[in-house]
Amino acid sequence: MADSNKMTIILFSGEMDKALAAFTLATTAASMGIKVSIFFTFWGLSVLRNGGMLAKKANFLQKMFGFLNRGTKESLPLTKFNFAGAGPEMMKLLMKQKKMASLPELFKLSRELDVKFIACTTSCNVMGLDREALVPEVDEMAGAATYLGEAKESNINLFV
Amino acid sequence: MADSNKMTIILFSGEMDKALAAFTLATTAASMGIKVSIFFTFWGLSVLRNGGMLAKKANFLQKMFGFLNRGTKESLPLTKFNFAGAGPEMMKLLMKQKKMASLPELFKLSRELDVKFIACTTSCNVMGLDREALVPEVDEMAGAATYLGEAKESNINLFV
Amino acid sequence: MADSNKMTIILFSGEMDKALAAFTLATTAASMGIKVSIFFTFWGLSVLRNGGMLAKKANFLQKMFGFLNRGTKESLPLTKFNFAGAGPEMMKLLMKQKKMASLPELFKLSRELDVKFIACTTSCNVMGLDREALVPEVDEMAGAATYLGEAKESNINLFV
Repeated sequence: MADSNKMTIILFSGEMDKALAAFTLATTAASMGIKVSIFFTFWGLSVLRNGGMLAKKANFLQKMFGFLNRGTKESLPLTKFNFAGAGPEMMKLLMKQKKMASLPELFKLSRELDVKFIACTTSCNVMGLDREALVPEVDEMAGAATYLGEAKESNINLFV
Repeated sequence: MADSNKMTIILFSGEMDKALAAFTLATTAASMGIKVSIFFTFWGLSVLRNGGMLAKKANFLQKMFGFLNRGTKESLPLTKFNFAGAGPEMMKLLMKQKKMASLPELFKLSRELDVKFIACTTSCNVMGLDREALVPEVDEMAGAATYLGEAKESNINLFV
Repeated sequence: MADSNKMTIILFSGEMDKALAAFTLATTAASMGIKVSIFFTFWGLSVLRNGGMLAKKANFLQKMFGFLNRGTKESLPLTKFNFAGAGPEMMKLLMKQKKMASLPELFKLSRELDVKFIACTTSCNVMGLDREALVPEVDEMAGAATYLGEAKESNINLFV
């Protein structure tokens, strides 16, 4: 049975604006007593990357992709008006002026509120990421079946 | 309890094609007796902008973003093949040839069908938008908690 | 009543990475006994295009769009790092090295697992596509009302 007090978010996108949306929803939901899981897949894994690290066994192609896609939660691009990184800096400045939580702050808060972080094993495997290349806050590395098991029981399921 | 006759859409994206998808779903659902709320956030707020207006107290950075992101529901870009605005014009012409409703027409129709429009206060605050800078059709300015309250009761929840 | 053993996916996007996410979720869900429908709309229709075909009655503007948007499931771009097609080739090579199923393979598998394919008539009409221009695997051409009828009964509804 679906439970209206459960929510899942697939964070597929690796942009700061989309990650902010996902984490604002996750932290607000958690503070309302909703149990939230975020399933990080594909570009969304950037949020979980530990610096620019890759798995030690990453191959040449993975290193190339890893370099191109080198952002972490501290330095993600915007979906629009990125201007080689000037856009996100402007956005961060604006958010600071308006006293709004930054992505790293929302990330920290979501941990304090017991939001569950699941990293998609399949995507990690393609992108040359392993447990060591991800931040310690990751609860679990799992595949689509784990996500679907949680989504079946959750009333709110979003793909971001 | 989730109600299969309720639906929420988060319109995060500010492109014409995604807004068309959201409004086609919203108007079709409403005409089937489903109660629909659209929560406009981030770039999706463009659909609600009243001409190029910003809040009177908008600061310099907000004015810069507001200028870059100056589209309204009459003039949004496409996610692909935008070609500095030629793409959307071609798409609009094609839709007219095929006698399909344009975004402003679907917007009007969704009001007639009582689709609820909620503008995200947090995003408005970042982007320098206030009630006056938005079209009169907005029902409510509210945050993520209001959205989540509705999503908990809705069976269909989409993030566009 | 929503059924936790039903799932719908709207595939709006026409990129390889997003299509891979949708088909990975669909095939995993189907193999877990969840009934899945994918509703292909707008750029997502590229996955269903039969070679570069358009409807015979496609007009000039539709031919232009059809040419610009000429990818099929064998040749879709990436949302990031596309580099005029080099990105997707690198990604395909990487997936092959890691022994992961390609999009055409997941497409085939999802048919074997009875995932239902619905092509959006409204989008087909705009884009100059008809039944003949789509692959034989399409189960049904239908509009938003058909999608919403299924989504009302499904617990997991995603917009990709």
